[in-house]
Amino acid sequence: MDNPEEWRQQAWAHLTKLRQECPLVQCITNFVSMDLMANVLLSAGASPAMVHSIDEIPEFTPKVHALCINVGTLTPDWLPAMKVAAETANKERKPWVLDPVAAGASSFRLKACLELLGMKPSVVRGNGSEILALVKGSVDPNSKGVDSRHESIDVVEAAKSLAQLSGSVVAVSGAVDVVTDGQQAVGIRNGVAMLQKITATGCSVSALVAAFVAIDPLHLVEATASALSLFGVASEIGMDMAKGPASLRMHLIDSLYGLDQGTVFNRVKITKL
Amino acid sequence: MDNPEEWRQQAWAHLTKLRQECPLVQCITNFVSMDLMANVLLSAGASPAMVHSIDEIPEFTPKVHALCINVGTLTPDWLPAMKVAAETANKERKPWVLDPVAAGASSFRLKACLELLGMKPSVVRGNGSEILALVKGSVDPNSKGVDSRHESIDVVEAAKSLAQLSGSVVAVSGAVDVVTDGQQAVGIRNGVAMLQKITATGCSVSALVAAFVAIDPLHLVEATASALSLFGVASEIGMDMAKGPASLRMHLIDSLYGLDQGTVFNRVKITKL
Amino acid sequence: MDNPEEWRQQAWAHLTKLRQECPLVQCITNFVSMDLMANVLLSAGASPAMVHSIDEIPEFTPKVHALCINVGTLTPDWLPAMKVAAETANKERKPWVLDPVAAGASSFRLKACLELLGMKPSVVRGNGSEILALVKGSVDPNSKGVDSRHESIDVVEAAKSLAQLSGSVVAVSGAVDVVTDGQQAVGIRNGVAMLQKITATGCSVSALVAAFVAIDPLHLVEATASALSLFGVASEIGMDMAKGPASLRMHLIDSLYGLDQGTVFNRVKITKL
Repeated sequence: MDNPEEWRQQAWAHLTKLRQECPLVQCITNFVSMDLMANVLLSAGASPAMVHSIDEIPEFTPKVHALCINVGTLTPDWLPAMKVAAETANKERKPWVLDPVAAGASSFRLKACLELLGMKPSVVRGNGSEILALVKGSVDPNSKGVDSRHESIDVVEAAKSLAQLSGSVVAVSGAVDVVTDGQQAVGIRNGVAMLQKITATGCSVSALVAAFVAIDPLHLVEATASALSLFGVASEIGMDMAKGPASLRMHLIDSLYGLDQGTVFNRVKITKL
Repeated sequence: MDNPEEWRQQAWAHLTKLRQECPLVQCITNFVSMDLMANVLLSAGASPAMVHSIDEIPEFTPKVHALCINVGTLTPDWLPAMKVAAETANKERKPWVLDPVAAGASSFRLKACLELLGMKPSVVRGNGSEILALVKGSVDPNSKGVDSRHESIDVVEAAKSLAQLSGSVVAVSGAVDVVTDGQQAVGIRNGVAMLQKITATGCSVSALVAAFVAIDPLHLVEATASALSLFGVASEIGMDMAKGPASLRMHLIDSLYGLDQGTVFNRVKITKL
Repeated sequence: MDNPEEWRQQAWAHLTKLRQECPLVQCITNFVSMDLMANVLLSAGASPAMVHSIDEIPEFTPKVHALCINVGTLTPDWLPAMKVAAETANKERKPWVLDPVAAGASSFRLKACLELLGMKPSVVRGNGSEILALVKGSVDPNSKGVDSRHESIDVVEAAKSLAQLSGSVVAVSGAVDVVTDGQQAVGIRNGVAMLQKITATGCSVSALVAAFVAIDPLHLVEATASALSLFGVASEIGMDMAKGPASLRMHLIDSLYGLDQGTVFNRVKITKL
């Protein structure tokens, strides 16, 4: 698609389908993000399930429509459950999203992320530093954890490499979000800078990507772009009412819940790069 | 009591006593709900204690006034602590509440819930699907996790059966909440539909039930009905100010904190079924 | 410093430096507080990292600027990671803060807190009951968990004793906050009573102290006083807009984010005791 209009119509079609089908999205995620992630999924129209026990994943994961795996507060005991969930999703042909939080912050974390990447997630979503860490396969001596020190537009080539290497669609958050399958690349110009002052917004976008690929698993790039754009649009509307990070967080969720066709058509900014 | 006025007066009496006595409520709960649950307890006037280490439960649980056990993000390592806490509460004659989150979602979860149910909680609170799963004792192949696919009024008979079977008071959340001891059943017509778009509201109601039975342990049905009704009233007031799920969550807590006699008398809707 | 003006200028200088340097603050904390703590750090200008796996602490902790250890939902498996992190911080000469949540609530918890205290935290921050429990080294039979039953001003002497005993700066929250290095004591008269109706505000102040000592590690008393005062000021401004605990929580974070020089100069109330 080359026409911005088509991307807008598609984003609205995705959101409408999401609200109708209410996909069940399993999240194996970090402790910091659970509350916001569940609320973002609910406000978008999805049904979150925070289920991470290896004792029930083989029975539960086949029932979900998508899976989101996030390594934010990873300890070794969580990794086997993540792997069994990813395996189950693959076997059941359910899409799943990997969020390699702070992938370059330590060898332990990087190794875990590379192992999960090797299990072929449908989509990998991170910031520039995280995507670069996965491409390089090495720890970043200057990593500050979850914050990115690289602008997403600088890492388009890295994202394409990672997509080609891994077979996953790769999404990079930044001033301009980028989504690529290794061939085509799409840019999303929605969102506000203050999102970086709210914890777990990146994690929540990853979960939202899972919800969108759940309802359009054959168009991963498009569904991912819709998710990133609509979250960004909700933050823009929220920003008009916000007085700081905490009120932005509230208005963002309210706005995501209330998104209507006119707003989506006016605000969504997705273009081919 | 047959008179709606009496229920209203009783709900206000319960809330007044709760605010005066500030009962200490121990919560062994899921990671998603901890923040909201603690804030709901605080705003109602109780004192929350999120203590789940088996190493301190034998010493700590005797000091609390009630206990709430919630299996939302259960893993096997948490179950022994839950059982020791339930045992200790029973031995010390402290009331405790079981929230069998997504009981029918997996065999592991159902088995854990049935084991805890066998330890005779004072109150079991869940949605229709969860209560039916406990009555049937079987996994629901269509379980979507925490969401209910059954309206509570349809499950009054199931709730009565479970109450008779277990000896616990059973509370079912839904369009109409139902509380029963197996003989009498009470209906609560408070609350708003948008609560389902906020994560952990059900979990938080269960903790609130624990706080209310803490201050009236000899009248479990009545105290449970008061808790459910007042949480619903707070959500109704919050809804008047809300623009979406996140602002509802905020206004709900503020409203619970600010509930006054006039509002309680005007809004509480509890009746015998 | 004896002049209130100097304290105000210093608080503003601290905040300005914090916003410029954006220190990386590692938090090993309880599940209830993670979301609020991360958001408080972000709104103040710091960069939070919730990293608690012992597998990455030896590699990650040397990169952080300060560490906050909080025992709120402690289980035995978390303690080794806390100790390795404290050791690493000491070795790397990074300041670290201990929040001995509910130290007197059980023998298990008290023992863990005393062990961590023995590792010489830069600052210990708690409420009156917690500080007294550490001084006495005994479990409080009436401990209600996180709530304090002692006014901070009553425990100035206890705080001084603990500071002398431990070599740590000790901060006690209460109607008047107190900070002492065992010799001098400083009083902070900022904050609002309703903070006690919001979960994890104490935990979040401890993390904020970590952020402030990160940017002024040679003046622990002063940096701690600035952190406590500015959090209190933000709560005062938030209180002007709040209708209850949940809106206070939101406005507090927004206000912390937006603090300007005029407000800080008008509101900060720090004096020698």
